[in-house]
Amino acid sequence: MTSTLLDTNTPNAQPTPSYADIQSIVADDFEIMDKQVFGSLNSKVQLVMSVSQHVINAGGKRMRPLITLLCARMFDDHPSQSAMHLAAITEMLHTATLVHDDVIDESGQRRGKPTANATWDNATAVLVGDYLIARAFNLLVGFQSLPLLQVFSDGTCDIAEGEVLQLQHQHNPEATETDYLNIIDGKTSRLFMMATQGAAILQGKTEYMPVLGNFGQHFGNAFQIIDDVLDYSGDSELMGKNLGDDLAEGKPTLPTIKALELLKQSNHEGYEQLRVAVQTGKTPNAAQLIELVRQSGALDYCKLRALEETKLAQQALESLPDNRYRHGLYQLTELASARLL
Amino acid sequence: MTSTLLDTNTPNAQPTPSYADIQSIVADDFEIMDKQVFGSLNSKVQLVMSVSQHVINAGGKRMRPLITLLCARMFDDHPSQSAMHLAAITEMLHTATLVHDDVIDESGQRRGKPTANATWDNATAVLVGDYLIARAFNLLVGFQSLPLLQVFSDGTCDIAEGEVLQLQHQHNPEATETDYLNIIDGKTSRLFMMATQGAAILQGKTEYMPVLGNFGQHFGNAFQIIDDVLDYSGDSELMGKNLGDDLAEGKPTLPTIKALELLKQSNHEGYEQLRVAVQTGKTPNAAQLIELVRQSGALDYCKLRALEETKLAQQALESLPDNRYRHGLYQLTELASARLL
Repeated sequence: MTSTLLDTNTPNAQPTPSYADIQSIVADDFEIMDKQVFGSLNSKVQLVMSVSQHVINAGGKRMRPLITLLCARMFDDHPSQSAMHLAAITEMLHTATLVHDDVIDESGQRRGKPTANATWDNATAVLVGDYLIARAFNLLVGFQSLPLLQVFSDGTCDIAEGEVLQLQHQHNPEATETDYLNIIDGKTSRLFMMATQGAAILQGKTEYMPVLGNFGQHFGNAFQIIDDVLDYSGDSELMGKNLGDDLAEGKPTLPTIKALELLKQSNHEGYEQLRVAVQTGKTPNAAQLIELVRQSGALDYCKLRALEETKLAQQALESLPDNRYRHGLYQLTELASARLL
Repeated sequence: MTSTLLDTNTPNAQPTPSYADIQSIVADDFEIMDKQVFGSLNSKVQLVMSVSQHVINAGGKRMRPLITLLCARMFDDHPSQSAMHLAAITEMLHTATLVHDDVIDESGQRRGKPTANATWDNATAVLVGDYLIARAFNLLVGFQSLPLLQVFSDGTCDIAEGEVLQLQHQHNPEATETDYLNIIDGKTSRLFMMATQGAAILQGKTEYMPVLGNFGQHFGNAFQIIDDVLDYSGDSELMGKNLGDDLAEGKPTLPTIKALELLKQSNHEGYEQLRVAVQTGKTPNAAQLIELVRQSGALDYCKLRALEETKLAQQALESLPDNRYRHGLYQLTELASARLL
């Protein structure tokens, strides 16, 4: 069991549970959802099926659908089958964005497994990603709920816009924390919001939409900031990617943005080096640049920001029905924070 | 004025009108639609706006929205504003598929203008294509019509599947006419069907859905077969692309499929050459291969098949309200056929 950053403020806190512990709160629903992610693919085109199955198999922990399942149970201990189905669709949408991300970043591996673009080619990955987006909408229409379609179609636009905004700021050493927040709000937090709000719509609890939106947004922000810190401080084998990948792609994430700000303030000779690295994406001295970011104090700032976002997410939870499913959501935010240690 | 293939069977036929003539039947609607294609983009991300505007500007004749506009007026001489809006969305979806197609085919130009992937890069083109798909769905949700969403979300899946099926058969010299029809049914005809059926749903004329489906499918098939014939016989400057592009990409279109069949039947020595060209996509002797396809008699077969499809589309029109808008649709099918001469 790992203890969390948050524990330092709460002396009597229990140890953070594992992901499997949280998943077990909705074990049956999770199993059904997991089958439905595959079962929802019903293409008559063999290549669509094999690529989709490959990328869904190579998927991660299914955290977004877990959020949907916990939310649905939080509102109703016997939720409709729709919740499992919506959770599966959330994962399908998430997978579609990952497939396109890997094309864009020219990634050969994700979580230690070969990507679709590496296994097949870019063309196949682009088109199967398109199919997954289209199929997700197609399945959403099946719920016959216009409010649900509104949330998901607004959200999918925001996700795409967040991704383009990230590209717009690639190689931009002048990017600010506000730019960064706008990017992650779209590319990450929006789907967290959709995963929670969708469950509320299906369970007829739309009065909770604003508070769920808050929870999803802050949890998403915390999650992404932590992910970006790990790119400078994590265990690369554990993450299935290399340290400093973001820098090598010229992506100004919060650690870099803050490091540039701090190095500039202190007239540090490393400022110019880091600025040029972001601008060009050329990092022959990657290890030295990573060390520079670490030494700058930027990671401490990022950890504090992640902690703030986590706390805001946890505060939002307090307005929701108090039961073990809500507690599961709380534990998820703790678990995400724990990745920082 | 060009006369058409079809004229040979109808001695009193009038000369085929120009595209501008047909467009003028719904001139006011067309103008509103054209503005709405741009007006419907309201991203806060500057790069989304500039790329989207570029690709929509570089767009073609807006034939799919023209079909929607003619259908809407055919049902009601004073259609709602929704028809113009839906027509604009149809063009947006079409543009999204073209943007991704250009990434896949690594095209630098489309209709003589630089593509998004050439002007920016693949990453930008993939993500802005995603935005256009998401935004099209977002706007469709605005109609608050589940039947419309069903048709468009089913259709968008079919389009993506058709595109993947085309990839699956790339470099496959064993592809059959049935494989080809399955491909073009998805990648081309489905959007023609959506463009007509969407108008019927908005005008409350759902009894015409099956016949509109027939019209759209056969017109789409005819249009695509003609397009594929032009890749072997057309004026490359006029088309803004090179002759033999499909062959160089290893795409077994109907001309190649039929040529392979005919050459094999006659034990022609060129059979093996053409088979290897499809299989490898290597065409150092492109001009010779194009001539081989032309001489094989395959293009005559394709023209006959296009004519059959055109006639089936025209027959379907006979079950629809008889007015000048229906006549406009008829003229569009004639105009498409005329491209063969």
